[in-house]
Amino acid sequence: MKETYTRPVNGKNVEIQPSFFKNLMNLAADSIIPYQWRALNDEVPDAEPSYCIRNFRAAAGEIDAPHAGFVFQDSDLAKWIEAASYMLMWREDKETEKNIDACVDLIEKAQLEDGYLDTYYILTDINKRWTNLRDNHELYCAGHMLEAAVAYYKATGKDKLLNVMIKFVKHIKSRFGTEEGKLRGYPGHEELELALVKLYEETGDKEHLALAKYFIDERGQSPLFFDEECKREGRGIGWVRSIYEGGAYYQSHKPVREQIKAVGHAVRACYLYSGMADVARETEDERLKEACDTLYENITRRQMYITGAVGQSSFGEAFSFDYDLPSDLVYGETCASIALLFFAHRMLRMSPKGEYGDLMDKLIYNGTISGMNLTGDKFFYVNPLESWPERSRKNQQFAHIKSERQKWFGCACCPPNLARLVCSLPGYIYHTQGDTVYFALYTSSNANIPLENGNAAFSVKTGYPWDGKVIIQMEKAFSGMTMALRLPAWVKTYKLNINGKFAHTRMQDGYLYIEDALKAGDEIVFDMDMPVMVMRANPKVRATSGKIALVRGPVVYCLEEADNGFDLHALSMRADQNMQYAFDPDLLGGVGTITADAYREIESGWDDNELYADHATEKAPASVMFIPYYAWNNRSVGEMTVWVREEK
Amino acid sequence: MKETYTRPVNGKNVEIQPSFFKNLMNLAADSIIPYQWRALNDEVPDAEPSYCIRNFRAAAGEIDAPHAGFVFQDSDLAKWIEAASYMLMWREDKETEKNIDACVDLIEKAQLEDGYLDTYYILTDINKRWTNLRDNHELYCAGHMLEAAVAYYKATGKDKLLNVMIKFVKHIKSRFGTEEGKLRGYPGHEELELALVKLYEETGDKEHLALAKYFIDERGQSPLFFDEECKREGRGIGWVRSIYEGGAYYQSHKPVREQIKAVGHAVRACYLYSGMADVARETEDERLKEACDTLYENITRRQMYITGAVGQSSFGEAFSFDYDLPSDLVYGETCASIALLFFAHRMLRMSPKGEYGDLMDKLIYNGTISGMNLTGDKFFYVNPLESWPERSRKNQQFAHIKSERQKWFGCACCPPNLARLVCSLPGYIYHTQGDTVYFALYTSSNANIPLENGNAAFSVKTGYPWDGKVIIQMEKAFSGMTMALRLPAWVKTYKLNINGKFAHTRMQDGYLYIEDALKAGDEIVFDMDMPVMVMRANPKVRATSGKIALVRGPVVYCLEEADNGFDLHALSMRADQNMQYAFDPDLLGGVGTITADAYREIESGWDDNELYADHATEKAPASVMFIPYYAWNNRSVGEMTVWVREEK
Repeated sequence: MKETYTRPVNGKNVEIQPSFFKNLMNLAADSIIPYQWRALNDEVPDAEPSYCIRNFRAAAGEIDAPHAGFVFQDSDLAKWIEAASYMLMWREDKETEKNIDACVDLIEKAQLEDGYLDTYYILTDINKRWTNLRDNHELYCAGHMLEAAVAYYKATGKDKLLNVMIKFVKHIKSRFGTEEGKLRGYPGHEELELALVKLYEETGDKEHLALAKYFIDERGQSPLFFDEECKREGRGIGWVRSIYEGGAYYQSHKPVREQIKAVGHAVRACYLYSGMADVARETEDERLKEACDTLYENITRRQMYITGAVGQSSFGEAFSFDYDLPSDLVYGETCASIALLFFAHRMLRMSPKGEYGDLMDKLIYNGTISGMNLTGDKFFYVNPLESWPERSRKNQQFAHIKSERQKWFGCACCPPNLARLVCSLPGYIYHTQGDTVYFALYTSSNANIPLENGNAAFSVKTGYPWDGKVIIQMEKAFSGMTMALRLPAWVKTYKLNINGKFAHTRMQDGYLYIEDALKAGDEIVFDMDMPVMVMRANPKVRATSGKIALVRGPVVYCLEEADNGFDLHALSMRADQNMQYAFDPDLLGGVGTITADAYREIESGWDDNELYADHATEKAPASVMFIPYYAWNNRSVGEMTVWVREEK
Repeated sequence: MKETYTRPVNGKNVEIQPSFFKNLMNLAADSIIPYQWRALNDEVPDAEPSYCIRNFRAAAGEIDAPHAGFVFQDSDLAKWIEAASYMLMWREDKETEKNIDACVDLIEKAQLEDGYLDTYYILTDINKRWTNLRDNHELYCAGHMLEAAVAYYKATGKDKLLNVMIKFVKHIKSRFGTEEGKLRGYPGHEELELALVKLYEETGDKEHLALAKYFIDERGQSPLFFDEECKREGRGIGWVRSIYEGGAYYQSHKPVREQIKAVGHAVRACYLYSGMADVARETEDERLKEACDTLYENITRRQMYITGAVGQSSFGEAFSFDYDLPSDLVYGETCASIALLFFAHRMLRMSPKGEYGDLMDKLIYNGTISGMNLTGDKFFYVNPLESWPERSRKNQQFAHIKSERQKWFGCACCPPNLARLVCSLPGYIYHTQGDTVYFALYTSSNANIPLENGNAAFSVKTGYPWDGKVIIQMEKAFSGMTMALRLPAWVKTYKLNINGKFAHTRMQDGYLYIEDALKAGDEIVFDMDMPVMVMRANPKVRATSGKIALVRGPVVYCLEEADNGFDLHALSMRADQNMQYAFDPDLLGGVGTITADAYREIESGWDDNELYADHATEKAPASVMFIPYYAWNNRSVGEMTVWVREEK
């Protein structure tokens, strides 16, 4: 393991205190996880049936039923088990644990003698397994179930599912590889790569790492496997492949080390990049790390929305190209934001740089949780930066942009993905390297962290993300240990005191290193100024030319019709004004709001019959209120916009 | 015939002199018509075969070949015959006339004994005819061939094709209607309605008018015919029908007199509205005229681009809804602009109001001819108001927006439609009513016009659309006759003199009526000031918020990369400046240009790695040159924009 690599602190060592995070976690535990359990069992009255558990029961021979639902339906159960496992790390829930155990029994029973496990092929034609890697998600489902197995083992120490999945992995290993007689294939939807590295990290078995490395290395090699597979099976290549040159939709157009731009299906892409970063870290592959750096930069400097959302195009839920960032036509799938967060987290593990934590921050407070409502029972798949409900209804080009969150999806990838992210938040906060504790995120918590030469324990109190003050009370410390606090890029001024006195720090790559001898009882007060910031996009971005957006701390704000009336496009505002920030505990579960002076175009000068005219449009002063972007569409269906025309 | 109704002057009575129109007409005659003739005969080497003539030869029994091409392929030949017929009205061309005669023989031979004529069903399964009115275009093809027959008869006096089509119309009449045993159907793609009125006008046979009226009246009645047809034939309703409620895509969702918004496929819609206006006029149906007024207003006040383009959505090539006018995602099919021009022309026939001529002007100089290049051999189907070639290539949502005109289309509706419009321009210029000559359009011409109580003859000299001065030299006149000159809505100041002296006129509905006793030798000088006008869209239009466009006379201007470099979105300009207009005879075949002061955002303040930042973007003074919109994309593939951000 390289000297600079960091290791995330096990979430079990971090007890989240009342906070923004804790609220999210409770929401997942109280609402999403139980709701999804009912959904998986087809017990939600007015939602499409999932068939997920039913498929497993049929595959296990308990009932006689055909496979139903998507070909990747198994992954829904996997993601639920994974999410619930994370929850069990911080909340006792015997009932859920019992349900998981029952599922594990079912899964074990469904598994074939040779280790194979996928209800779609078990229930349809087992002879067809591994014949459509590109479209049929077997390796994707394997990846999710493997993640679930590792999580459940970590949470409870129970290894039945882990063993089931190790058996499946052995089967996969027997079928895939460069050796004679094996398929030189790889997942059509990436996911298994990163899961195999988790399995390796848990078991120490290098075979699993080698398999992950094989999938990464083989991807995009000539001749292109997916094209060969189509030929062999007598299938046409299909429209997606024909539109995305060489199979860029699947990131299989060229070897991964030669890929320099994020392309194709955004969730697939970011899962792949996460797996690449995992393999680069664990195999100390500098060339692969460079590819990750390049792709990370391409995404974050060229193809990412200000909310962290990625995937500009609804055709293929895909990346499009540099600086193409339309606010209205965005795809910005919730799952893609989550996948990008996974990638950022892995980049942070390779290099303790503040920017990776900054992006995790951005994603957690914006582009991921915008995917669910405040009661955790309705979800967005697509997260637009601008909503005009009438357009979504009446112009089919915008039909993918829903004006309100939906109850549940037939393709239910986003809700359980959110649940597993939120429930695992404790594991994202701290990293260690040697005797250094890295703060990636700020939230109130009690942490007890083993370091190389001792243990650190401390409590953190903060009102983040509404307040930039972070108070760290050392409970255990030892000489030589270092606390490294992420200094977000948005911080212009801050104070850092220890026991009321100016703290000497070393600043490097977005981290403040406190290398003074710390001792139990020390109080570190890190106070980041959190002004409202007026943001502009790089002038190469066309959609936002002449527009501004407001950000405070990690939180992106938006205008919503509920506060500002309709025709939000008629509003404009000056950047150089004193905007008022306030925290409103009674609004939307408690949110920051920003009020500002603005102008509203008035139509009085326009005859109702004039569509184009050579006179100006007048404007009147107006006052506007911004709310956090993630909290939009929790009161009524209406317009929303993140970007507002700048008045000069 | 109502007192106020006007009658277009036969194009044969109008000899177009060297002018913008004459250039267009020559382009069609020299390039499009011969090129299309080769295309119809599959003789264009690197274009998709048309199969059109081949289908007729096969249907006529001359060769053995299956039907090929679209189900509406016959209409390509029809539109070509129609266009060539108009050409023969002003240019002798024995070869083309011979080719048409040969085609007519072929068509006659292909016609079935009972009058039926459609090569698709003749060559596939004749028993299936009239079983898919919604999708299979038989009545549409009949309409186009009928228009061709009337045009060829008018041009040459030859009636063979006319008789073929009258026979077909009789067959149609025997199959459709409210009588027992007949299908209560109507065209899936409207066109036949307006063609039947042309046939009625030519023959005076009221049966044809009655059939047109039947199709108009029956459309959208309950139960919906197209849904019934699907049921009867055991077909699903399909995605188009499912997306457009009630079949609004086909304008068959409700009876036409109850339709108040333009909906669905824009070409279909405007052909229908044209047919409605024809029937309203010829049957003096006030209620139907009101429906036309309402729909015309909806289009022109709510759903039309500044170029006259209509159809905002690529899904269904369709209207979307009021004030939804995105510049980047427009469809704006060339054929839809042509169809709207047909509608405007028919509205003018019902009411001599200047606004209808204004729209014809707008369409002729912008949204129609933008569909072809200056050499008449490449064509746009979609006419965007903004082009960003990289986006069209890399973001599939914009794939319908081509960055350069194409050689020929498999679905070749637009090129021949342009040819027939351009060749028939002489017939759009003047209208009469009683002893009044109405000027709908201005172009240099010699006209000899029979009026109720005498003949008027005059020559017109003008540099329109580059110059607003129109000199009319009376060659024949008589006491009591009136000359009515359209005063375009964009005219703020003008002079109107007769023989050098101030002319007394009456102004009504956008027309200046010269009711002084005119006599041979009189010279009328109508001099319209034609300043550069800075246009804005109604503030309800979102896409153009904060943007301006330049218009001079009827011509809309645009910025093109060839003159202004790339990144056109980085440009902004003040409205209150003195812009310089100049005519450049050497540019793009001779066009007006507008130069203006502008600002260009400079990226120097931006780190290449910054995608979002809280600093401003600086701008530097720049000079920009606008060219007429129709002339864009004649030099190179590059960016283009009609709307420019306004600097204040």
